[in-house]
Amino acid sequence: GGQPDQDTDMSRRLAFLAEADGLKSVYRATRILDASRRENSGEHSWHIALYALILAEHAKRPVDLDRVIRMLLIHDLVEIDVGDSPIHGDHDISEMEAAEQAAADRIFGLLPDEQGTALRALWDEFEAATSDDAVFAKSIDRVQPVICNLETGGGTWPEYNVTAQQLEDRVGWKVAKGAPAIWDHLQSRIRAWFAAA
Amino acid sequence: GGQPDQDTDMSRRLAFLAEADGLKSVYRATRILDASRRENSGEHSWHIALYALILAEHAKRPVDLDRVIRMLLIHDLVEIDVGDSPIHGDHDISEMEAAEQAAADRIFGLLPDEQGTALRALWDEFEAATSDDAVFAKSIDRVQPVICNLETGGGTWPEYNVTAQQLEDRVGWKVAKGAPAIWDHLQSRIRAWFAAA
Ligand SMILES: [Ca+2]
Repeated sequence: GGQPDQDTDMSRRLAFLAEADGLKSVYRATRILDASRRENSGEHSWHIALYALILAEHAKRPVDLDRVIRMLLIHDLVEIDVGDSPIHGDHDISEMEAAEQAAADRIFGLLPDEQGTALRALWDEFEAATSDDAVFAKSIDRVQPVICNLETGGGTWPEYNVTAQQLEDRVGWKVAKGAPAIWDHLQSRIRAWFAAA
Repeated sequence: GGQPDQDTDMSRRLAFLAEADGLKSVYRATRILDASRRENSGEHSWHIALYALILAEHAKRPVDLDRVIRMLLIHDLVEIDVGDSPIHGDHDISEMEAAEQAAADRIFGLLPDEQGTALRALWDEFEAATSDDAVFAKSIDRVQPVICNLETGGGTWPEYNVTAQQLEDRVGWKVAKGAPAIWDHLQSRIRAWFAAA
């Protein structure tokens, strides 16, 4: 039913949502808390949106929480095409970025033009990591795996030979930039883990 | 670091977020679109929050999309204690509801009081399914598995012996109540599938 244009619009939206399902098959470096398996990027996206909702008042600068949540819901969609890059892995950054841009073109391009353009702009903002909303969103995205690893006795840190210094250099300042109270709270637990490792 | 009260608050929030991880191990009746495995309630919660974001303009009545998204992010948390009840399964409704209330008490009770109370009220509103926001949120929660089944050649309908009439009685009117344009769009595909089944 409906007008032809409405039908086309709806079909494009449903095609995008079906494509998004692929994020449930992209597996990350981190394990779920019972350690039974790797976490996938779909459930990760849910968990960090919930993190943002619960931890918003610890943002360093005032944020529009609803924009942050929307950002986090879409931030990993490009992984459907390019996979997840573990923060402690080695990869060519510029090559990765070009692949992610192409993936964003394809995936957000599935939507009706106006909606696709708006969500693509939100994804670009997250990637640029300069607005207050994006900085907080990045902090949340970075801190969840750390908490995951702490809750699972170090999790995948030994596997990736992560040191306390690497964690500080690659993750700590990014978390502290958007949510210093969270990093502050975690630091004693992190120090204790690496001291005992 | 931080004041003792802030530390307690942060600890309660992180405990809630760690508990929420359990939703990634609650498996639903529906399969992911490549049919390789059952969908879990964590990734389902992400997917329907994205559905709401993409399909909001098809809501029957004006909704506050950001409230709808927050509702959908938390709506399934009680399943950590009570599991998922397939809509086409058989269960004692009042027993289920009592168990869900107890689960909501426990899980939202992990949070600092003020935050726990606010999110519990949002969950109660979703369950009551009377506000415009909740009616639309329920429509989205109900329609995603239908689309999933359509995209996977009937999916788990044969397994649960679902008939076209059951689908209309148990799902259709709930979807149509909050998002009639979506149900209208799907009906020809649903009729075609059951005619061929
Ligand atoms: Ca649900």
